[in-house]
Amino acid sequence: MSNIQVNSDRTKAEIESVAITDNIRLSDDGNSLVIIDQVKLPNTLEYKKISDLESAYQAIKKLEVRGAPAIGIFAGYMMYVLSKKDEDLPYNEFYKRFIENKEYLNSSRPTAVNLSWALGRIERLVRSNKEKPVKEIVSLIKKEATAIHNEDIEMCCRISEYGLSLLKDGDGVLTHCNAGPLATSFGTAQGPFLLAKARGMNIKVYADETRPLLQGARLTSYELCKAGVDVTLICDDMASLVMKNGWIDACFVGCDRIAANGDFANKIGTSAVAILARYYGIPVYSLGPTSTVDMNCPDGDHIKIELRDPEEIKTMWYEKPMAPAQVKCYNPSFDVTDHELLTGIVTEKGIIYPPFDINLKKLFDEE
Amino acid sequence: MSNIQVNSDRTKAEIESVAITDNIRLSDDGNSLVIIDQVKLPNTLEYKKISDLESAYQAIKKLEVRGAPAIGIFAGYMMYVLSKKDEDLPYNEFYKRFIENKEYLNSSRPTAVNLSWALGRIERLVRSNKEKPVKEIVSLIKKEATAIHNEDIEMCCRISEYGLSLLKDGDGVLTHCNAGPLATSFGTAQGPFLLAKARGMNIKVYADETRPLLQGARLTSYELCKAGVDVTLICDDMASLVMKNGWIDACFVGCDRIAANGDFANKIGTSAVAILARYYGIPVYSLGPTSTVDMNCPDGDHIKIELRDPEEIKTMWYEKPMAPAQVKCYNPSFDVTDHELLTGIVTEKGIIYPPFDINLKKLFDEE
Repeated sequence: MSNIQVNSDRTKAEIESVAITDNIRLSDDGNSLVIIDQVKLPNTLEYKKISDLESAYQAIKKLEVRGAPAIGIFAGYMMYVLSKKDEDLPYNEFYKRFIENKEYLNSSRPTAVNLSWALGRIERLVRSNKEKPVKEIVSLIKKEATAIHNEDIEMCCRISEYGLSLLKDGDGVLTHCNAGPLATSFGTAQGPFLLAKARGMNIKVYADETRPLLQGARLTSYELCKAGVDVTLICDDMASLVMKNGWIDACFVGCDRIAANGDFANKIGTSAVAILARYYGIPVYSLGPTSTVDMNCPDGDHIKIELRDPEEIKTMWYEKPMAPAQVKCYNPSFDVTDHELLTGIVTEKGIIYPPFDINLKKLFDEE
Repeated sequence: MSNIQVNSDRTKAEIESVAITDNIRLSDDGNSLVIIDQVKLPNTLEYKKISDLESAYQAIKKLEVRGAPAIGIFAGYMMYVLSKKDEDLPYNEFYKRFIENKEYLNSSRPTAVNLSWALGRIERLVRSNKEKPVKEIVSLIKKEATAIHNEDIEMCCRISEYGLSLLKDGDGVLTHCNAGPLATSFGTAQGPFLLAKARGMNIKVYADETRPLLQGARLTSYELCKAGVDVTLICDDMASLVMKNGWIDACFVGCDRIAANGDFANKIGTSAVAILARYYGIPVYSLGPTSTVDMNCPDGDHIKIELRDPEEIKTMWYEKPMAPAQVKCYNPSFDVTDHELLTGIVTEKGIIYPPFDINLKKLFDEE
């Protein structure tokens, strides 16, 4: 594992100087959350106030807020906003309402690990402080939600630094899906590009549009354009030619879950990027926090793949349907990339190289 | 080269029994062409009458008729429809008008090889018969246009037979873009699936949607659904997972141009399909007529790649733009697949196997 010195405060200031990083913000009075409505991007940058449970539920469900870490941050703050309304109730009633709110919010996106993780963290805090006055508990929830946010920022800054250490001025990098500040506070897979820009480095980014949800076209392109990064949008089926042209020095992708042997799940299409990169002799890095490593999952075969609505392929975004109504679709939301295709895993603790089974184990044994 | 007996009349009847094969048809009075307006697919099957030069030009330009062979067939018949209007003119005037019509039609899609090929073939016919009465020339044009059409049908039937000889009942096949009867009279890359259906064989087809023009979603899915073929539509970035799942026994793709060493150009994304297939140990076949082999082109590096309008990626088909207006796009219309990734080339003369440089040369030396 490589290790470099990271001054997160400096990194944070640098990324903030170029990127949009206020996509989830608690209002000054603490009565609402202000989010960027990601459904409106890339056409309108619109901030939206969320003050009640139903709006919060809908915001997650309708993908107004999306990206696993961003959803976790949102859920933490939201439990504070909702709890604050109940701070005059006695503990038992407060707790009953808290659990109702929590469970409803948790049902908005069953597969979002960070959502239940953040909600569970706040719930444990409430339970372990039940002897304290409710107002104090509410104030502890605010502190915990802020901590969840700050920890994510710290982690993103470290991942961005480690990621950037792999690049040199003028490099071309292919990326897939969105793992920038809209999804992950300060960015994981796309954080290094923002940091490079802040430091005057010229990195040429090629963004896969990432069908069917078009996160690359709508979000990655938007974030990187706004930051002044040199970004070129391509369709997913153009990645092979872009690599063949000699334009790509590395592939940076995110990760949703990493198995103990280094196999990792990420947005559908990631395994294709890795196989193409192997064919053309280009290194592939997966960037994400160590919290996505699941040492209880031996390998990729144990990762279940969520199937989504065929309409995302046939009709979503379009003026009129683009496929016959009766055609079957297969619409998996992610795929698993074999660890043998992976050059390194870039985490907040450093870059992990093969053999991944041994080096991932070491990482957790050291703790 | 493998060789099997093909009875094209029987094959033709079989494909006709399941597929839509009347997408270009001369009206009974010979005063117009009736085409399927492919822009309206997959939502409406609408036949459109084309009787004048401007409508014909627009039909090609707006992709109402598309697919290299289909455009050639259309152009042949159209020169008859237009010439028929001038059949009472003296030869010199007739020829002048013929050339004007021909050149204008030819300018509708400069990269369509079959367009200029068919127009050139009709022009040579006109010139070499200039001593004949104009009415007779016009009748010869009709004969030639019909011959162009029938030759394409014969070729498609033979390719479909050779292609089907590679498959067995229950096989899964991945295909990219559209090379069915809408594009090629009776189908090249997708012809074998129609023939299989007519013979009661169960082939499970996986169709890449093929961004940005979505030929797989709009046309291949439509044609195969209509014919009752078991087809599943996927996004291009899902092909890797579909192969990993063990669902694919072969990849069938078309070809726009084959170099002397077997490298071939086809719709953007074809090279990715071939690289993924190599990784998963799946054979890849390119299906197309020997007329796409260009023995003067030594290898893929000599094939120039057309770049198209970025709006095809950013705004086309959509309700509202799906990428920021200022983002750069790279939009190549095809890519070149290395011959080393190719298992065989399925032509109307049989299946050509490696070494392609030697076996392609043999094919033409034998003629």
